[in-house]
Amino acid sequence: MSTATHPSGPRLNRDAIEQIVREIVSRQFSFPGSAAPTSENGAPKLVVSISARHLHLTDEHVDVLFGPGSTLTPMKPLFQDGFYAAEETVMVVGPRRRMLPAVRVLGPTRPHSQVELAFTDAISLGIDVPVRASGRIEGTPGCVLVGPKGVVELEQGVIRAERHVHMSLADAARYGVRNGDRMSLRIRSTCSTTLEDLLVRADATSKLEVHLDTDEGNAVDLDHAAHVELLKQ
Amino acid sequence: MSTATHPSGPRLNRDAIEQIVREIVSRQFSFPGSAAPTSENGAPKLVVSISARHLHLTDEHVDVLFGPGSTLTPMKPLFQDGFYAAEETVMVVGPRRRMLPAVRVLGPTRPHSQVELAFTDAISLGIDVPVRASGRIEGTPGCVLVGPKGVVELEQGVIRAERHVHMSLADAARYGVRNGDRMSLRIRSTCSTTLEDLLVRADATSKLEVHLDTDEGNAVDLDHAAHVELLKQ
Repeated sequence: MSTATHPSGPRLNRDAIEQIVREIVSRQFSFPGSAAPTSENGAPKLVVSISARHLHLTDEHVDVLFGPGSTLTPMKPLFQDGFYAAEETVMVVGPRRRMLPAVRVLGPTRPHSQVELAFTDAISLGIDVPVRASGRIEGTPGCVLVGPKGVVELEQGVIRAERHVHMSLADAARYGVRNGDRMSLRIRSTCSTTLEDLLVRADATSKLEVHLDTDEGNAVDLDHAAHVELLKQ
Repeated sequence: MSTATHPSGPRLNRDAIEQIVREIVSRQFSFPGSAAPTSENGAPKLVVSISARHLHLTDEHVDVLFGPGSTLTPMKPLFQDGFYAAEETVMVVGPRRRMLPAVRVLGPTRPHSQVELAFTDAISLGIDVPVRASGRIEGTPGCVLVGPKGVVELEQGVIRAERHVHMSLADAARYGVRNGDRMSLRIRSTCSTTLEDLLVRADATSKLEVHLDTDEGNAVDLDHAAHVELLKQ
């Protein structure tokens, strides 16, 4: 039995379509100060955010997709200062016209357009995506972006974002790590897990925040986590 | 922008619908003998299987869904002897008529019907599922099952299956564990991870096999894993 041979010919009704296009920009969880190797005091709360599939666009691609002179409209600020989920979404089309109908654009614009998918999303599109740090898109697969005013054929830029932790240089010093190092995230839940090799992205202005994707968040049941700890490897 | 306001009114074409109903019964990976605490020799290959969403049915529900006197038609044997993916699929409908159009039935039939979803699936259906060992369905959410010949309203039975490892009593002795114990699975990949608290399901006839769901398999990038090891906790 498949949909094609189902005798009563199931239809994708409005609710089902709305469900399919529903996406969560970011579910965010805040945990008590995680253990730091040099100090138990003053540890900031550890924020763990689950990023749903999303994309970043260049100014030029915003023009093509949403019309000449268009700019992104901030809808919801993200945890890191200056970044936001935009009101705009685009359709992401993979090989054989498989598609995700409404993928959220994050702002501000960037020098290169980039689509960030969980493997579950990529498999549904039929795209074999590599795991990459944001911005490292050389040689990655492309896709087609469809907006209300135009179409962009991305030559490359579809990735699964490597899980990572943003932090200030002060946080890095407290954990005893540097930008580019790796840490582990231990989650206690009904699905306890240690995620290894989180990339440390430390700079002067970032706030302490772990970024996971929906596959990782769902695999470890972050919604029901009792404790989360960031550990030096 | 949303699908509803997209000026050209995107349609879910045939390819898209086929993509949506596409499911993988089980992706299976085989790794060299994993380290056993008591012996390095004779360790069987460790099979790690990713179970996509699926369901188990009672004889009575097979009758209702597929017509009186129906039986399941084996399509593909599973790794554990005597179990199979059936040709039959059913539509699983959640609250507000969100649905998964073709969820695979696994055989043989069981004393209780049970739907096993990844959290990604459950979220898309709008069902808040608990993590449960197979068969422990008391107090779990229900759903509606739609087959070609009839409809079943399940009062309960929708779960995320707790990750687990099947093994023979001989395997259990080799690892130094017993039925009901917990082990860890360490995966080396681009997304290295230690999955803790795998339930050990040891009996006289089972073959050594870890069962993960699609969220877990995708989170750890099992497709590209270099090494997988089953560890006593």
